[in-house]
Amino acid sequence: MSTTVITYNRGMSRWEPNARSRLEQAALDLYRERGFDQTTVAEIAQRAGLTERTFFRYFVDKREMLFWGQEILRELYMRTIAAMPGSAAPIDMVAAALEASVPVFNDRREIVRQRQAVIAANPGLQERELLKRAALASAMSDALRQRGVPDPIASLTANVGVLAFTTAFVRWVNAPDEYDLSQLIREALDQLKVITAGT
Amino acid sequence: MSTTVITYNRGMSRWEPNARSRLEQAALDLYRERGFDQTTVAEIAQRAGLTERTFFRYFVDKREMLFWGQEILRELYMRTIAAMPGSAAPIDMVAAALEASVPVFNDRREIVRQRQAVIAANPGLQERELLKRAALASAMSDALRQRGVPDPIASLTANVGVLAFTTAFVRWVNAPDEYDLSQLIREALDQLKVITAGT
Repeated sequence: MSTTVITYNRGMSRWEPNARSRLEQAALDLYRERGFDQTTVAEIAQRAGLTERTFFRYFVDKREMLFWGQEILRELYMRTIAAMPGSAAPIDMVAAALEASVPVFNDRREIVRQRQAVIAANPGLQERELLKRAALASAMSDALRQRGVPDPIASLTANVGVLAFTTAFVRWVNAPDEYDLSQLIREALDQLKVITAGT
Repeated sequence: MSTTVITYNRGMSRWEPNARSRLEQAALDLYRERGFDQTTVAEIAQRAGLTERTFFRYFVDKREMLFWGQEILRELYMRTIAAMPGSAAPIDMVAAALEASVPVFNDRREIVRQRQAVIAANPGLQERELLKRAALASAMSDALRQRGVPDPIASLTANVGVLAFTTAFVRWVNAPDEYDLSQLIREALDQLKVITAGT
């Protein structure tokens, strides 16, 4: 019989309360004050009262820390589409996936708003945001294909979903207490229906 | 009365027949043989039998030479949308703009096919391609707004257009003699109509 001993170096990996959100808020404050390019990881860690080592336990670098939501959304989309009834139309599967992501934004509206202002001020970050959207569209396409939706319908539907979400998000993010994100998504999907139907 | 004298240094800017297309073909050959990252402007110029100086008279750098079509498409889209009858639906304005661009691709199908293969092999170039699409969607949005189409309809319609074109292009580019690009664009727009209409 053996006992598993977990060696634990308190100095290196001691638990810091809310380290992730403290780092995130410190970074957003610095990006706004000095600009994204002028801010270093050392400064972010210092402002948060943490070490650089702790920063790198949570984030790859100062750019990627703005985009960790991508992985959360990807998993949420995949899981929601996988759980939809087989009788659902592809666009309804995508609408459900977008709807499932709404609490992620509502729960963090102030951070999301600040993050968006940082991205809007930096072309390199806007490029990264385009990559995020493309990756999420690609994830939803995969999920739809796994549900038997053929191409190009899978890819078109996923991209329509990302387009509707982006349009809704842009309206919501500047006045998150005024608008309902779910409703804006439904409105964008309805507008896409009217637009593509033509005259 | 005065005479305008144009000084002209023959050594520096002598005319080279088809310099642009010779450079383009040389670059595509080298990108395919060695990879995009491993190819220098000096090598491209040498392969084309021209100087680096001539290269830079036509292109900003070895990346941008793959994307000069963006400006041509932008102007074509703007001009076509500006010339549409005011009674046309926004989606029909966008469809006409895309249709107007088809000859640009048909006339250069072999170069376009090779270019696409280079982009598909390089993540950095794929990012640049996403930027190109975003810029073209933004140009079409502007053109629609100038025709009195309000937001978010202008932006949604422009993005639907870029999505339809991209979907059609991906099918066309691998077998440009087999498919008709115009027809593929119309098919994608029809599919978007069915998709957004839902169940």
